[in-house]
Amino acid sequence: MYTYPFKLEKLINEISKLPGIGPKMAERTAIYIFKKGQPAADALSEALGGIKDIKFCDICGNISAAGTCAVCSDEKRDKGAICVVESPEDVITIEHTGKHSGVYHVLYGLINPLNNILPDNLKIRQLLKRSEKTENIREIILAINHTVEGDATSLYIADAVKTANPDIKITRLAKGLPTGSDIKYADEITLGQAILERKEI
Amino acid sequence: MYTYPFKLEKLINEISKLPGIGPKMAERTAIYIFKKGQPAADALSEALGGIKDIKFCDICGNISAAGTCAVCSDEKRDKGAICVVESPEDVITIEHTGKHSGVYHVLYGLINPLNNILPDNLKIRQLLKRSEKTENIREIILAINHTVEGDATSLYIADAVKTANPDIKITRLAKGLPTGSDIKYADEITLGQAILERKEI
Repeated sequence: MYTYPFKLEKLINEISKLPGIGPKMAERTAIYIFKKGQPAADALSEALGGIKDIKFCDICGNISAAGTCAVCSDEKRDKGAICVVESPEDVITIEHTGKHSGVYHVLYGLINPLNNILPDNLKIRQLLKRSEKTENIREIILAINHTVEGDATSLYIADAVKTANPDIKITRLAKGLPTGSDIKYADEITLGQAILERKEI
Repeated sequence: MYTYPFKLEKLINEISKLPGIGPKMAERTAIYIFKKGQPAADALSEALGGIKDIKFCDICGNISAAGTCAVCSDEKRDKGAICVVESPEDVITIEHTGKHSGVYHVLYGLINPLNNILPDNLKIRQLLKRSEKTENIREIILAINHTVEGDATSLYIADAVKTANPDIKITRLAKGLPTGSDIKYADEITLGQAILERKEI
């Protein structure tokens, strides 16, 4: 029976290790790259080689071109307000809003005991270190998804930070109806929460 | 405003060129590779380097480790029956059925004038060359999807082969109900075709 050449199988195998790529898509991607030819493959290889020049920021853990990231080394950013996020993608999303002038802390995941992700597997200890009294942090903004794992992680961090430094104000992003959404299509939990947390105008 | 380091942007850009990968997935994939570290990136790079050792088969156009693919160079395969397919993935799928003992011809696409894919953009000329009288081909099996583009491509090939060599029998895969399917959920066109092409048992 015909099978793909060994080197194509190897490429399919490597591609299928990437997240969200199943075996059929890996096959299709590998054949696509093969049909594009060696220059296209080389361009991707070269970009992969650049990984070695990318670092984690010493302070916030975000992806950085240098030892300290562009946000942490920016004198104009408010070092007293830390926005805690699950992933580097969230930093980019929040930066696009233009509503946070402080710094960040990237957890790289959320607490999820069922998947064996415990507080020690996340960058929570580093956050507690940043919360010590000598660091002059005023506020920690938990920009964490409103999910079961997000709630658990938020509660854990709030408890731990309060213990380390009771002077820090801990906030979490507001729950409510998305802008432009239609009430008749809103889910019950979101709508219920929006009613409970209604604001006087 | 914080943006990703240049080298990460470059990797995201290269990954987003792959088929079926949107900008968000490219971002997630690049960060995943970065978090896995350089050895994981190197493994993928090395596999990409293997592309240069993969070839198109001189005869059938399929992906091959050598100039002639494993099927075309196999003496046990029936060289008189050519199964025509759209892509290399289809060869693998048909091989898994174990029902075709002949050889293949890979078109690399289907005729689609709206997307500017004309017969000359596919490997149809090579198929006509293989269909010449001196090559002793008995049958050409069109294993092409039952879609508008598939129908157009099948008709075009059937016409062209008949002109080149009227002795060749041209067949197309049967239309009908899939094995294990439920009549009440079948679409009208498939069911209608299955009725028209009913077989005496």
